Amino acid sequence: MEQTATPLQVNFETSPDQYQHWKLTIDGHVATLAMDVNEDAGMRPGDYKLKLNSYDLGVDIELADVLQRLRFEHPEVHAVVLTSLKPRIFCAGANIYMLGTSSHAFKVNFCKFTNETRLGMEDMSAHSGIKFMAAVNGICAGGGYELALACDEILLVDDGTASVGLPETPLLGVLPGTGGLTRVVDKRKVRRDLADDFSTLVEGVRGKRAVEGRFVDAVIPTSKFQEGVTKRAQELAALSDRPKTGPGISLSPLMPVVDGDRIRYRYVTGVIDREKRLCELTISAPDTPQPATANEFLRAGDQSWAVRAFRELDDALLRLRLNEPEIGTIVLRTTGDPKAVLAVDAALDAHKSDWLVREITSLIRRTLKRVDLTSRSFFALIEPGNAFAGTLLELALAADRVYMLDHPDQANTIELSAMNGGAYPMSNGLTRLQVRFLGEPESVGKALDHDGPIDASSALDAGLVFSAPDDLDWDDEVRMALEARAAFSPDALTGMEANLRFAGPETMETKIFGRLTAWQNWIFQRPNAVGEHGALMTYGREGRPTFDFNRT
Amino acid sequence: MEQTATPLQVNFETSPDQYQHWKLTIDGHVATLAMDVNEDAGMRPGDYKLKLNSYDLGVDIELADVLQRLRFEHPEVHAVVLTSLKPRIFCAGANIYMLGTSSHAFKVNFCKFTNETRLGMEDMSAHSGIKFMAAVNGICAGGGYELALACDEILLVDDGTASVGLPETPLLGVLPGTGGLTRVVDKRKVRRDLADDFSTLVEGVRGKRAVEGRFVDAVIPTSKFQEGVTKRAQELAALSDRPKTGPGISLSPLMPVVDGDRIRYRYVTGVIDREKRLCELTISAPDTPQPATANEFLRAGDQSWAVRAFRELDDALLRLRLNEPEIGTIVLRTTGDPKAVLAVDAALDAHKSDWLVREITSLIRRTLKRVDLTSRSFFALIEPGNAFAGTLLELALAADRVYMLDHPDQANTIELSAMNGGAYPMSNGLTRLQVRFLGEPESVGKALDHDGPIDASSALDAGLVFSAPDDLDWDDEVRMALEARAAFSPDALTGMEANLRFAGPETMETKIFGRLTAWQNWIFQRPNAVGEHGALMTYGREGRPTFDFNRT
Repeated sequence: MEQTATPLQVNFETSPDQYQHWKLTIDGHVATLAMDVNEDAGMRPGDYKLKLNSYDLGVDIELADVLQRLRFEHPEVHAVVLTSLKPRIFCAGANIYMLGTSSHAFKVNFCKFTNETRLGMEDMSAHSGIKFMAAVNGICAGGGYELALACDEILLVDDGTASVGLPETPLLGVLPGTGGLTRVVDKRKVRRDLADDFSTLVEGVRGKRAVEGRFVDAVIPTSKFQEGVTKRAQELAALSDRPKTGPGISLSPLMPVVDGDRIRYRYVTGVIDREKRLCELTISAPDTPQPATANEFLRAGDQSWAVRAFRELDDALLRLRLNEPEIGTIVLRTTGDPKAVLAVDAALDAHKSDWLVREITSLIRRTLKRVDLTSRSFFALIEPGNAFAGTLLELALAADRVYMLDHPDQANTIELSAMNGGAYPMSNGLTRLQVRFLGEPESVGKALDHDGPIDASSALDAGLVFSAPDDLDWDDEVRMALEARAAFSPDALTGMEANLRFAGPETMETKIFGRLTAWQNWIFQRPNAVGEHGALMTYGREGRPTFDFNRT
Repeated sequence: MEQTATPLQVNFETSPDQYQHWKLTIDGHVATLAMDVNEDAGMRPGDYKLKLNSYDLGVDIELADVLQRLRFEHPEVHAVVLTSLKPRIFCAGANIYMLGTSSHAFKVNFCKFTNETRLGMEDMSAHSGIKFMAAVNGICAGGGYELALACDEILLVDDGTASVGLPETPLLGVLPGTGGLTRVVDKRKVRRDLADDFSTLVEGVRGKRAVEGRFVDAVIPTSKFQEGVTKRAQELAALSDRPKTGPGISLSPLMPVVDGDRIRYRYVTGVIDREKRLCELTISAPDTPQPATANEFLRAGDQSWAVRAFRELDDALLRLRLNEPEIGTIVLRTTGDPKAVLAVDAALDAHKSDWLVREITSLIRRTLKRVDLTSRSFFALIEPGNAFAGTLLELALAADRVYMLDHPDQANTIELSAMNGGAYPMSNGLTRLQVRFLGEPESVGKALDHDGPIDASSALDAGLVFSAPDDLDWDDEVRMALEARAAFSPDALTGMEANLRFAGPETMETKIFGRLTAWQNWIFQRPNAVGEHGALMTYGREGRPTFDFNRT
């Protein structure tokens, strides 16, 4: 996980003073987030230019950062207008030359991250009292329109040229794979034949046709556009239950210490074992007094355990995804005092109506979803000294397997809290306990009703852990399980886990990650897209792509 | 669509006297369907042997045939026991050598067909009063277990060796892609960690462990197995509302006339235009008096229009899928008297509680689902003389686009019937009208309430068709739309259609075709599976597969 200067080592941390591509202005309760991509500041500057507000992962990392800051640093912001500073261009979508020159794994993880960022906007709208409006002031194509689709409303300028469109199929031989197809028919409920037509148009649609097809909410003449945008943004802001004024809490850099294959944050430590292709990720419980009231959370700022530990975990997961593709298994451990975690849980639960506590819970929820959606195997190991209680127990429930040492002499327990009962739903809308016990729903209540610590054999009986070997078997059983995992085809594991983790209902969110993403990944490998004469490779050069027209 | 002797030209028609792999016996209300695969009778006999009751497409075509015959020819059958005649082997799943030597497109379409056949068993259980029990008398692995999973219940012999398992991930580097992963966690609701463990075991599970994990419903000692199976089968049969005695109706061969690129059945005609890469598929309305009562349907047998036309359409679709991969677009037309279709609809609706009418409706429903799930673009063309009414109108509603000629002089109308209101739900449980009007649900009722024929401009206003050009524009607009479609990347179209056709809820069925299938297709292309040193290619040979361990 060592950071180097090579552009393949992605750093997900940034801050407003470093932004290259976005301008944030705040006027009363409305923030305007304007895209103004610096075409020379791509992640691999020599390889492509980010023309026409096209984006690469770096642009999206800034977007994710500014959204996180709006949540925490600007409680007075109640609505966000997403627009562009480039004349006649809103956003041209993901940069095609970047896609054409990226590895399959990078493309897939880039799309996954952008999906998570866009779903984060919808999460802000649904849970944080921050509505989004896209003020589309020009061409809005592909990933640009997918960004607009993630907003609550889309206003399009009616200037005769501004349009929205998903030209991936006709231009690039791939899908609008960042939620586009799903949001068109499932969120905006566009009629399927209109969606089909729309998704085959290079030029997109504009004016009345865009409104009639439900592709945008309104079109406004150029002369009245700014006024219309401001008015509607203020109406959206008026719906919010966020505080009228700040202060919020500032998010300071995490600054992990990277030392070879070891990364150390305040509460999270990661150690990579390259031979075993695994990363041991350990999360510590709070070791200092933690906030018990909303005001104390505010005063603690970004240094409270709940904020700090989950920002760190999120950062570690993202680094592993992008920078360590060969590390197939993540071994999750926790250490410290479980009572300290339960005390934080009690505070989060007691003050959940407070805006900041809500944001902290949301940060944890989104980080846990990041685990669910990470295509690595997660094995949780519960050993004496662990802190798998309440919120941290969710990490075990998110894991593909949980091993708990049934030690004859040393206490080794887990414990549930109210936070396991609904604070952290998965993408499918169910809690991890509900998904786990789909076949025996009564076990959910039983587990939540249990008062106090649960030892290994009781946890096994309750179905909360996969295996509870004693101290004589522990080392061998865990070692063999990890060795076996490391030997399997990583692709089969990715597909297997993507299917087994999401039993139960599907939502727009799971459809985006399951159905749409899987198809896009498939297409991203096809010669018709990425072969020598594929559409992604020939884009912008002379000559047309050559397709093998066999249907699959 | 010409049939040749080459094994790549797949013929989906068969009959009991030709079966190589299945033995059907009927005892009272219980049918026993025993797998006894003839290892020398694979579809490409020189290339692989179907050892250990492993199967290829030919084995599944027989299974689909016998299931269809049980529905129609044997109304007295109320429960089916699926078992094997091979000692100590139930079924070893899809033949690996067959998979290793098949093209990507063939593998994908093979899996799709087997999925449809297994879902057909669940359809029989849910809608036809025919329950299924797997009597697992030996090793039951991979696709074999997926077949058992499609049954209502699984009984496993407890002989110390018989087991159920999904060894694809550890053995082959691919997924149990015929519904296995989905059915384990969504149908049988196996806990996700147990499912994860199970899906990584080469040897599967047996005995008590198989029951405790919910992988089977019961284990029975060898000495009591036959008795236990018979008893439980009779209990399942007792739940049925099927007739106590026959007769049913016999399904005779369709015997289409194949002449070059033209195939002609009684009511369905297909004409391939290779240059345009399209097939014009025309379905005729009844042209002779049709049954109006349940008894008349029985007397008409398989020659009634409803049975005959949809058996033909189903056969044509399957041939196109497997034998004509380059034909990317299917142009759907209907001809004849729409009133004749509406009369059939009235009879089907009036007598829907009759077992045979129920089967006929089910045949139509399953054929329409086959359209939804066919990875070709469907364009319906509605011209004067068309018969797009009621049941046939569903074909237009299943199409990606519908063009309707707004002719100034010639009448050109469509018409709805009660059958559009719920007789033919899609895989997601909604009718095609409901999916179409997800964004304007009131339009469903409006369309159904409309009495009588609807002309082109009214159909356009009602949102029932995509475009209604007049006679001056018709030829050009249709031609250009078809030309544009034919030029797109076939892979992008496959992914796009798979996403746009299924707005709304997801079910186990759509999860199998959307999430699971898409991931399996992805894996089926990966070098770790199908590369020179991939797991599918090295299986059974010396040496282990060599994996690129990068995770995606």
